Amino acid sequence: MIKIKRVAIVGGTHGNEWTGVYLIQKFQQYPELVQRSSFETLSLIANPQAVAVNRRYVDRDLNRCFDRHDLANQELVGYENNLAKEIAARLGANGTEPVDAIIDLHSTTANMGATIIPISRSPVNLRLASHLSDLNPTVRIYLGIHSEQDSPMLRSLAPLGCTVEVGPIAQGILNAHILAQTESLVLAILDYFDQLNQGVSLPPSSPVTIYQAMQTIDYPRNGRGDLKAIIHPDRQGQDYQCMKPGAPLFLDLQGKTIYYAGDSTIFPAFINEAAYYEKGIAMVITEKRAITISSSEII
Amino acid sequence: MIKIKRVAIVGGTHGNEWTGVYLIQKFQQYPELVQRSSFETLSLIANPQAVAVNRRYVDRDLNRCFDRHDLANQELVGYENNLAKEIAARLGANGTEPVDAIIDLHSTTANMGATIIPISRSPVNLRLASHLSDLNPTVRIYLGIHSEQDSPMLRSLAPLGCTVEVGPIAQGILNAHILAQTESLVLAILDYFDQLNQGVSLPPSSPVTIYQAMQTIDYPRNGRGDLKAIIHPDRQGQDYQCMKPGAPLFLDLQGKTIYYAGDSTIFPAFINEAAYYEKGIAMVITEKRAITISSSEII
Repeated sequence: MIKIKRVAIVGGTHGNEWTGVYLIQKFQQYPELVQRSSFETLSLIANPQAVAVNRRYVDRDLNRCFDRHDLANQELVGYENNLAKEIAARLGANGTEPVDAIIDLHSTTANMGATIIPISRSPVNLRLASHLSDLNPTVRIYLGIHSEQDSPMLRSLAPLGCTVEVGPIAQGILNAHILAQTESLVLAILDYFDQLNQGVSLPPSSPVTIYQAMQTIDYPRNGRGDLKAIIHPDRQGQDYQCMKPGAPLFLDLQGKTIYYAGDSTIFPAFINEAAYYEKGIAMVITEKRAITISSSEII
Repeated sequence: MIKIKRVAIVGGTHGNEWTGVYLIQKFQQYPELVQRSSFETLSLIANPQAVAVNRRYVDRDLNRCFDRHDLANQELVGYENNLAKEIAARLGANGTEPVDAIIDLHSTTANMGATIIPISRSPVNLRLASHLSDLNPTVRIYLGIHSEQDSPMLRSLAPLGCTVEVGPIAQGILNAHILAQTESLVLAILDYFDQLNQGVSLPPSSPVTIYQAMQTIDYPRNGRGDLKAIIHPDRQGQDYQCMKPGAPLFLDLQGKTIYYAGDSTIFPAFINEAAYYEKGIAMVITEKRAITISSSEII
């Protein structure tokens, strides 16, 4: 049987995504909200310096610093590289306060609604996501390109849990509706962990819809890297909606439409995410799939 | 008769408001879009360093650096203070390329739609704003608390023109719809200036609706300055909608509603503007008024 002893709720992994920061402050002020009888809960602001300056990061995106090789590389310096090592030394498997599960709170400028990104494709993590989607059918399940435990995300420090990604919301603001959506997912995840610990039998497996990230599309750019086109107005805000070959994709400076040249129907997500311009990502291509989750308890 | 010889279109006064930056790049690449036969048009990125790092400013908000005393104060140093002096020396009344009119392009995370903020309350500037609102009745006219020429805004360098403020849009992204709204206003303003130069008679005065900024409301904060409450969900996105005494205003950490305690009906704007958290502004209180513009040609 699964035994979860300690859960970390993390906000401020990106310093300008205030939803998580505000909720962590709330949970630290009212810890009874996130306490459950069968495990201990930690609430953590991951990147306080980035929060203080209201930027995604100071030197390097913290949520790309948790690759195992990077964590072991003593030659990597800079604020976030050091911070990642500190967080791993605290929360990681051999840490001072090792956690069994992580709930990492993020926001996006894309119109993605409430999205759960499981830490891994293990049956328990997928079943958690499926349970949240059962509770609220508008909740979508997104499997990252790196959905393995050696991914460079903070969430990869624990075997169990997920990222909660809610949008659309601008960076550096708070929105009551987005906060309420995010908080209710956090509480539902904690309740689920509590039930797991109490041996409540897991729901039977049934096909569940997931969006599997496959690759990314960049904006058209000129030789200097400047944008030559923007998201097409027909595509803006259409996250998780199907995009067929030949559909409008971008609009260039002269008002000319650039069409999607792929040869299969895909479901874009993270369309027009502010933080992804610098990463060369206009959107992430996903495939929509119905999968059956095994009833195994393997995490 | 009014004679406009040179007009400056300015974007990137705030480096993370990309709408103006992208449009200036477009106008520089296709200058015929903004050329008019009766005057010269300059297209300028005001704060290129802030644009490069995708932040509102580097040291200080550039759009608060144009107070006449600050411009004359040689002891004020820092990137934006120096930049303001350079821009004033170029575009100001005694500059190397003095402009008669400025169109300053901004964006907001608030749900303000397309807003025109005239440089001053002069009849010509108000009539320009009124004309834009006649062309498109969704365009609103907002008069700043500092709507005089000695205000600290960049637009105060010229006697004629306005700020174009369009939202809602997150900082650091581009949106086709917001770009189109902003561009069409720029082109309409240029056309209007061209008509003024050609002596086309000004439309007769009639009452026009304006929103006069009166004061600002800050978020409830604790002793350390941290937020204790957020914009109430009933108020979020309700820019320019009336708020009566006793209406829901904020929602605190415990979910308790804080009500508007004023004694008159007001019309909030800039609700939940990201850049205003650090300025201590949750929203700006405006009064909605119908004013009659004189037919004078005084700028």
